[in-house]
Amino acid sequence: MRGAVMYGPGDVRVDEREAPQIVEPTDAIIRVSAACVCGSDLWPYRGVEQMQWPAPMGHEYAGIVEEVGDAVTSVKPGQFVVGSFWATDNTCEICRSGYQSGCVNRVPMGALGAQAEVLRVPLADGTLIATPDLPDDDLVPSLVSASDVLGTGWFGAVAAEAGPGKTVAVVGDGAVGLLAVLAAKQLGAERIIAMSRHESRQRLAREYGATDIIEARGDEGVAAIKKLTNGLGAHSIVEAVGTQESMNQAIHAARPGGHVGFVGVAHGVAIDGMDLFWSLAHVHGGPAPVRRFLPELLDLIWNREINPGKVFDLELPLDQAADGYRAMDQRDAIKVLLRP
Amino acid sequence: MRGAVMYGPGDVRVDEREAPQIVEPTDAIIRVSAACVCGSDLWPYRGVEQMQWPAPMGHEYAGIVEEVGDAVTSVKPGQFVVGSFWATDNTCEICRSGYQSGCVNRVPMGALGAQAEVLRVPLADGTLIATPDLPDDDLVPSLVSASDVLGTGWFGAVAAEAGPGKTVAVVGDGAVGLLAVLAAKQLGAERIIAMSRHESRQRLAREYGATDIIEARGDEGVAAIKKLTNGLGAHSIVEAVGTQESMNQAIHAARPGGHVGFVGVAHGVAIDGMDLFWSLAHVHGGPAPVRRFLPELLDLIWNREINPGKVFDLELPLDQAADGYRAMDQRDAIKVLLRP
Repeated sequence: MRGAVMYGPGDVRVDEREAPQIVEPTDAIIRVSAACVCGSDLWPYRGVEQMQWPAPMGHEYAGIVEEVGDAVTSVKPGQFVVGSFWATDNTCEICRSGYQSGCVNRVPMGALGAQAEVLRVPLADGTLIATPDLPDDDLVPSLVSASDVLGTGWFGAVAAEAGPGKTVAVVGDGAVGLLAVLAAKQLGAERIIAMSRHESRQRLAREYGATDIIEARGDEGVAAIKKLTNGLGAHSIVEAVGTQESMNQAIHAARPGGHVGFVGVAHGVAIDGMDLFWSLAHVHGGPAPVRRFLPELLDLIWNREINPGKVFDLELPLDQAADGYRAMDQRDAIKVLLRP
Repeated sequence: MRGAVMYGPGDVRVDEREAPQIVEPTDAIIRVSAACVCGSDLWPYRGVEQMQWPAPMGHEYAGIVEEVGDAVTSVKPGQFVVGSFWATDNTCEICRSGYQSGCVNRVPMGALGAQAEVLRVPLADGTLIATPDLPDDDLVPSLVSASDVLGTGWFGAVAAEAGPGKTVAVVGDGAVGLLAVLAAKQLGAERIIAMSRHESRQRLAREYGATDIIEARGDEGVAAIKKLTNGLGAHSIVEAVGTQESMNQAIHAARPGGHVGFVGVAHGVAIDGMDLFWSLAHVHGGPAPVRRFLPELLDLIWNREINPGKVFDLELPLDQAADGYRAMDQRDAIKVLLRP
């Protein structure tokens, strides 16, 4: 079977790889209908994050179950399924508390390589959810988005405690940031400020529910948020970039007692203790526990109440994965869908 | 009137100072019954924090109202009152959200110098609370503790979301840490781990509700907490020191989804973004909004349900303030009470 492999920074190829098979009785094998290139895939692509090369790539997936291990009871061959980018048991104490991404038995799906024709999913019962039926083809982008990018934006908004009566600011106009806007809207936020200087992304942010757009960044961006909030700062900030500048911007833009939800993988970021102390902000984030939200997200998508799939502005056959990485790296595309 | 003044690191003297008078119609003048030396007073004393010398000192106080401005309605001369270490209006949007220490009109009481015979309290209606009657003398230490050290420990426990079913670990065995133990107990925590290697402090921690004592620090301290919690980490951690080591220890000891409440003034602390990301912990802290908790704390003290005053293991007349600073600096005393 074919799958994307990264051989080093900037070097992605689609190779013939050994087809995965059931290893544990809790495994499922799925034929991938759609996979994606993730913003976090760009860290090794840009040489910022080291990996063991060559590395199979991809951790976002949706597809049809081909085979399940003897212990799997919740999904069966022929079903269309979506799973989180962590395989998790969904039964341990941490999973039960809603932090499946901290599951004591978690397996990172990235290590298995979801940008491929066929994928092994460990801990299938705790990881996969089947849709009510086979989906219409136009639903597939939204469904695969729930695997990570939607679930991550959603977690950012939940961690920022977006909700009724709240002003929510979203730092970052990548796919996660845009879907955090969508999430804030669904969670009932009163005012949603998207920080973006790209016209096409601003348009999608508005479509997803942004009420205000701020183009300024850094201290100027903070001042603009303060100006919109009587000088107090926003109740909720979603940090969806993962740089020092974006983290500082998020903390400084929060009002005392406000909440920063951070879902950008925080490379080289240090939060100044005094800064955080005097901000009186809450900070919470990390790898999103997508499985917590997955049932609700799949329902919203199935019922066509949300359309997160619109973040995919480039769709390519799997064989052109390298073009997908290049487009995301150069910001020619917000988010790339790969069809095996 | 006499008051403590710091002339530089290590140099505290009790001088004749000009007696404060009503400046604003919202002011009250109180005759101080008790003041304290705070752990945060040690930062300038040790030369870690710069101040404008000479500086009047002290921000914790309880006493009897002598005079009030024309606009003051909630307290009157002759009443015994306690106030937060921030003077606050208690009416602005931030105050109403429970973050009085972020009040848009806040005044730091430290600038007015509470280690003195007489003290001006701005924004008296939003700051002071009167006890039902003049207190018995043995209640005074507990009452003045509510001004900061108890309120700060309490906020640490609330920020760490201590409560029923939770395992709470407290990093720091100073007065704030010990009172965070007391707070965790009052908030219904199931298990309370105090981190201390001082026998007398361990004893008080146990008296306040600690179920376990850990003497190890740093990575060993984290490992000991993990061992007590099935390898998962504590639900709630109160960080009550304010150093890099204590902050790292707090974050590393939290389980995924756990809460770190930090109330140590975080001098020179940087929180590693990746570390926090992968911990999946919540972090929240800062200067405690004591006013939020003050009515409840004064009730608990008045009804003798809690005895936070036990953290004062040295009581001195105001004139010996310098001895009080020295004893705290050398850790000969947990907390010093000054009687003008």
